[in-house]
Amino acid sequence: MPFKLTILGSSSALPTSERYPTAQVLNILGRFFLIDCGEGTQIQLRRQKIGFSKIKHIFISHLHGDHYFGLIGLISTLNLLGLKTDIHIYSPSELKNLIQPQLDFIKGKRKVNLIFHPLNFKKPQKIYTDKRVEVFSFPVKHSISTCGFLFKEIQKHANIKKEAILKYNIPIAKIKDIKAGSDFITDKGEIIQNIKLTKIPPQPRSYAFCTDTAYYEPIVEIIKDVDLLYHEATFPEEMKDFAQKTLHSTATDAANIAKLANVKKLIIGHFSARYNDASIFENEARIVFENTVSAKEGKTYKVK
Amino acid sequence: MPFKLTILGSSSALPTSERYPTAQVLNILGRFFLIDCGEGTQIQLRRQKIGFSKIKHIFISHLHGDHYFGLIGLISTLNLLGLKTDIHIYSPSELKNLIQPQLDFIKGKRKVNLIFHPLNFKKPQKIYTDKRVEVFSFPVKHSISTCGFLFKEIQKHANIKKEAILKYNIPIAKIKDIKAGSDFITDKGEIIQNIKLTKIPPQPRSYAFCTDTAYYEPIVEIIKDVDLLYHEATFPEEMKDFAQKTLHSTATDAANIAKLANVKKLIIGHFSARYNDASIFENEARIVFENTVSAKEGKTYKVK
Repeated sequence: MPFKLTILGSSSALPTSERYPTAQVLNILGRFFLIDCGEGTQIQLRRQKIGFSKIKHIFISHLHGDHYFGLIGLISTLNLLGLKTDIHIYSPSELKNLIQPQLDFIKGKRKVNLIFHPLNFKKPQKIYTDKRVEVFSFPVKHSISTCGFLFKEIQKHANIKKEAILKYNIPIAKIKDIKAGSDFITDKGEIIQNIKLTKIPPQPRSYAFCTDTAYYEPIVEIIKDVDLLYHEATFPEEMKDFAQKTLHSTATDAANIAKLANVKKLIIGHFSARYNDASIFENEARIVFENTVSAKEGKTYKVK
Repeated sequence: MPFKLTILGSSSALPTSERYPTAQVLNILGRFFLIDCGEGTQIQLRRQKIGFSKIKHIFISHLHGDHYFGLIGLISTLNLLGLKTDIHIYSPSELKNLIQPQLDFIKGKRKVNLIFHPLNFKKPQKIYTDKRVEVFSFPVKHSISTCGFLFKEIQKHANIKKEAILKYNIPIAKIKDIKAGSDFITDKGEIIQNIKLTKIPPQPRSYAFCTDTAYYEPIVEIIKDVDLLYHEATFPEEMKDFAQKTLHSTATDAANIAKLANVKKLIIGHFSARYNDASIFENEARIVFENTVSAKEGKTYKVK
C-alpha cells in the first residue's frame, strides 16, 4: 500500500538548468496529491510517468509564481485531453482571480471542473478527508500568506484473525466490537483477550510539507513525529542574514525543526539558484539532524 | 555577424517528456528575439546559456497556451533579477488582459517595463525596425487569430574599397554618393565605374516563422526566398483529415509551402505528442523539399 513522495521541482524562485520550481506528488494508497505546481510541472509529471488523470487534488502553498505558474498549463492540458473531472484546488483565495482571465479564454472548451477551497492563514485546519487519509493546512511564516500541509493516514481498526473466528466460533455480529477493541466471551464463559483475536494494524503514516517559510517553531507541534518532513532550506548558514530578511530558512533551520519535531526523515529543498551542488545544504543539515536528504528532481521517497 | 535560430521548444499543445511547447530565440547581429514563449521557456533559456537580460523583444504568435504560458514566469524572473528594462511584447491585444491580474499581484516589486504592441490579423505589417533589422507580422490560418513573423536584415549600402580612395584621390564629400551607387569622375575627367570602387555588401539574411497554421498559400509571397523557414508540421499525412479539421499542417504541407516560396532551408516542428520520433515528419517532408530538418530542443541553425 503505497505512501511515497516524488519530487518534481526542488528549486527556489529562479529555476536553474537542472532544477525546476516547486512541485511534488504524494501518492497515499493510490490517491495522488499534487503539492505546489511551479512552471514545468506537467512536463515533469510526464517524465515521471504519472498520469495526468490521477491528479484530482492540488495544494498550492502560496502565490509566489514559482509555486503556481505551472497550474494553468496543467489545467489546459487536462482540458485538451478531454478529462471530464472535478479538480479540487486548495490555495489562497486570490488564486482564482489570478488565473480567471486565462480560464475564461478557454472556457467554451473547458471540461475540467475546478473547485477552489480557500486556505486559512490564521490557524490549522482540516481541508480534506476520506476514509483513509486526511490533510491539514497550517500557517507558516513567509513574506506573503503561506500554508504548510500535513498528510496523514487515518488509524485503521485492528483486523480480526481468521483463525480466531474459527477457533472461538465468533459470530459475525461480534466482529465489529472486537475490531474496535472488545474482548470476546465464549459460550463457556471464557474471556478471550482482544490481543489474541486481532492483528495490530500498521501505524498510520504521515508527511508534512513546509515551504516557503522562515524558521518558525509554532509548526513543531503540528508536524510532530511525522515519518517524512519536507522543509525548505533556501540558503546555507553563510547566508543566514539574507534568509532571515527574505523569510526563508537555512539548512540548519530546517534540521533544527526536524529535530524538535522528532520526525523520522527530513528532505530539504527549495535551494537557491546560487548553488549548483546541494551537498553544502545536506552536509550542514546532517550536523543537526542525521537522517537528512536533499531533494532531487525525479527522486521518490517511500514510507513503509 | 550572427544570424542564428535556437529551438527551445518543438512540441505542439501537449508537451512530452522530451519536447517543450513552442519557443525559440533568433539572434540577428546580437539582437535576441524571443519567438513564442511556451511553458518552460525560462528553463530552456538557462540550458542554452542565453542570458535573460538579452531578451528585449518577445513575439507571441497567438493565444493558445502552448505559445505563451511561459511568459509570466519569464517576466517574474526578469523582475526578481532586478532588471530595470523595457520589454516589448508583440502579441494579440488580449494577452495583456490575460496576464494582468498576475502582473498586478507582483506590481509593487515590478522593475521590468512591459510595452505591448498589438498584432494586426488583417494584413501584413512592419512591427519592428532598427538600422539593421526589420520584422513583419502576417496573418496565417488557424482556429484563433494567429500571426507568422518575418525577420529580415536590411540591405546595407556597399562598402567603399580603401585602396580606391587612395588610388583615385576620392574626397570624403563624395563617399556617401559612391556608397549609394554613384560612379566617380577624377580630376582628369575619367569616369570610374562604381563597381571598381565598392565591395558588394553581403546579401541580407531572412527568417520566417509560421505556426500554428493550416496549409495557407497566401503566405508564400510574403516569405518568398527566405534563407530559413520554420513551418509547423503537427501531423504526418496519415492524419491529414485531422490536421485540416484542427487547422494545422502536415509535414507535406510544410514542404509544399517551402517549395512554392523557394526558401533555402526548412525547419519543421510543433509535432504532435502522439509521435516520439520526428523522422516520420522529416522523411515525409524531404520527398517534396529535400533541405528539411526537424526541430529539436537545443539545436541551433545558422544562416551564413
